[in-house]
Amino acid sequence: MRLSDLDTPAIIVDLDIMERNLRKAADYARSNGLRLRPHTKTHKSPALGRRQLDLGAAGLSVAKSTEAEVMLQSGTSDLLLAYPVIGRQKLQRLTEIARRSALTVSLDSLAAARPISDAAREAGVEIGVLAEVDVGLGRVGVQPGDELLSLVSGLARLPHLRWRGIAFYPGHIKELDDRGRADLETLRSTLFDTIRHLEQNSLHPEIVSGGSTPLLWYSHTIPGMNEIRPGTYIFNDRNTVYSGACTRADCAATILATVVSTAPGRMIIDGGSKTFSSDRLGYTADVTWGEILEAPHARFHKMNEEHGYVDLHAESTAFSVGDRVRVLPNHICVAVNLHEQVYGFRGDEVVEVWKVEGRGKLQ
Amino acid sequence: MRLSDLDTPAIIVDLDIMERNLRKAADYARSNGLRLRPHTKTHKSPALGRRQLDLGAAGLSVAKSTEAEVMLQSGTSDLLLAYPVIGRQKLQRLTEIARRSALTVSLDSLAAARPISDAAREAGVEIGVLAEVDVGLGRVGVQPGDELLSLVSGLARLPHLRWRGIAFYPGHIKELDDRGRADLETLRSTLFDTIRHLEQNSLHPEIVSGGSTPLLWYSHTIPGMNEIRPGTYIFNDRNTVYSGACTRADCAATILATVVSTAPGRMIIDGGSKTFSSDRLGYTADVTWGEILEAPHARFHKMNEEHGYVDLHAESTAFSVGDRVRVLPNHICVAVNLHEQVYGFRGDEVVEVWKVEGRGKLQ
Repeated sequence: MRLSDLDTPAIIVDLDIMERNLRKAADYARSNGLRLRPHTKTHKSPALGRRQLDLGAAGLSVAKSTEAEVMLQSGTSDLLLAYPVIGRQKLQRLTEIARRSALTVSLDSLAAARPISDAAREAGVEIGVLAEVDVGLGRVGVQPGDELLSLVSGLARLPHLRWRGIAFYPGHIKELDDRGRADLETLRSTLFDTIRHLEQNSLHPEIVSGGSTPLLWYSHTIPGMNEIRPGTYIFNDRNTVYSGACTRADCAATILATVVSTAPGRMIIDGGSKTFSSDRLGYTADVTWGEILEAPHARFHKMNEEHGYVDLHAESTAFSVGDRVRVLPNHICVAVNLHEQVYGFRGDEVVEVWKVEGRGKLQ
Repeated sequence: MRLSDLDTPAIIVDLDIMERNLRKAADYARSNGLRLRPHTKTHKSPALGRRQLDLGAAGLSVAKSTEAEVMLQSGTSDLLLAYPVIGRQKLQRLTEIARRSALTVSLDSLAAARPISDAAREAGVEIGVLAEVDVGLGRVGVQPGDELLSLVSGLARLPHLRWRGIAFYPGHIKELDDRGRADLETLRSTLFDTIRHLEQNSLHPEIVSGGSTPLLWYSHTIPGMNEIRPGTYIFNDRNTVYSGACTRADCAATILATVVSTAPGRMIIDGGSKTFSSDRLGYTADVTWGEILEAPHARFHKMNEEHGYVDLHAESTAFSVGDRVRVLPNHICVAVNLHEQVYGFRGDEVVEVWKVEGRGKLQ
């Protein structure tokens, strides 16, 4: 099948670029003594999780217990569920997963940890835990210092749990501008102090798991961190380009769309918020929904659920009904989650089709 | 199963409210001589399409050819595909659907119409067409007047197509404030002139299909319109409340979520942009992602993919890890599209589960 045979809209992935992205991160991790544990929320496909493992990943990360179930199909033997697991059905899923793979959960309260310990005891399994520490995002995580010490001390005492270390997510650092560099400096000293404080209390974190795609290539400069969990890096997107962590040439995934209507100065393409998602760019006040590769001066400025509005006043290329364009999306992780499958191509040939098995796995 | 047994996040629908919404629209349509043809993009579930037909709808609307395939399972005998159908695979789907149900397509160019005529001829079927007219949104649709006349004259001549009338979508009118009322007045005279112009040229539109949820209850005031296609009205959402087309008491769907982390003045719930979508409110500059029924003074002000950030500084109710809340979303159509199923309840009892069969049917 050729690209021109694909029905639209469709997410298409340039395999050469994707594999280069995977190898580059694996090489970087290896040469800096970091364990690479990609977050699979970007692709939600066991086949791509397998590819990441084959190309150097040490294990995989997921956000939800149902995603973890799906990602077992990758054949991974080591999963991190980087999300507090709360609720009866999720605990049952957790213990079933723990029978099939090493499983670690990050969490930030003993209220979350105790039911996991109880469920693990009943099921006769052991589950690893990381204490989540808030390094500035204000999302999940206890405060560094006494609050973390208290959580870790509690975790270390709970039966059938194995306290393995700490986790953090520096999502407040989006790019390495002046403010980002200052925040990165603060992150370094916070982490240095945090680990020293734990060790002074005879609590030695075996795993210090953190990082994000924007900070990916700075991971070796963060003291004590020995595991990274980038997600978007497999495909990259407009946000990653803006963050400085990649160039446009590193963007592997675009969305193939068809022009369905034209009028003077504008065209409508066959995808809107149900194809691209309504995630804005995180880096600019400019509200556009993607870059059209064939029309660099077009502005994809508005969407309804199934319609993309493209302003062509500044663009010299003319488009007709039936023409196809490729759109670089703002945020590929939420776009993939809207599609049933993703197509891998080399040249003009579609050579792989991945079902987005983890799509809608929200529990 | 009780609501308390549901794993979260989950979309739950109060069946009494939903059925009241369906009956109210059907009664309104019947008493005003309008054909009700609900847009099923809101629920994407054949079982709910069936319910709409059973409660008074004359047929169903869909946006994409793959959605149309799915919606055949509702048992409908009359489908409107309110979207220009472009491309080989879609044409094939179209003729297969036309063998199983009366099918009408709205479109705005002969470039879109000719291949449908060809495909219908080859397959030996007849497909209805509506000429889409742009009444102010600037999306699809030709301009009223000569442009429309030229399109309709062309459609009427194409073999194996049956020209049935016109379609329009007044999506530029979001609420009936001063500007909205003026736009509605313009819409009335545009439509009056448009229909007269066609009739003066011996082209008599059997179907005049239009409307939107915000204008639903004004449909009888729009001259010539005889078919309405509301979508959101089955569930309603924050946007519908803001538009004035319903009250909070008419909102049937909420999203059940669990508190997974707390810190002074804030909590995190187990849903973000992959649960609620990133659609903002269309009616206010206030960027919040939903209303928490149990915490009217909380601000659900930020999301990541799987995390909802709730500011509790102004809220008197205290929340603990494991507590559950119900969230009224901004835009229910895009939220449903992110979930595998939707749960219908009465009182505390979950009595129906609908698979979102049309989820991800983008082609």
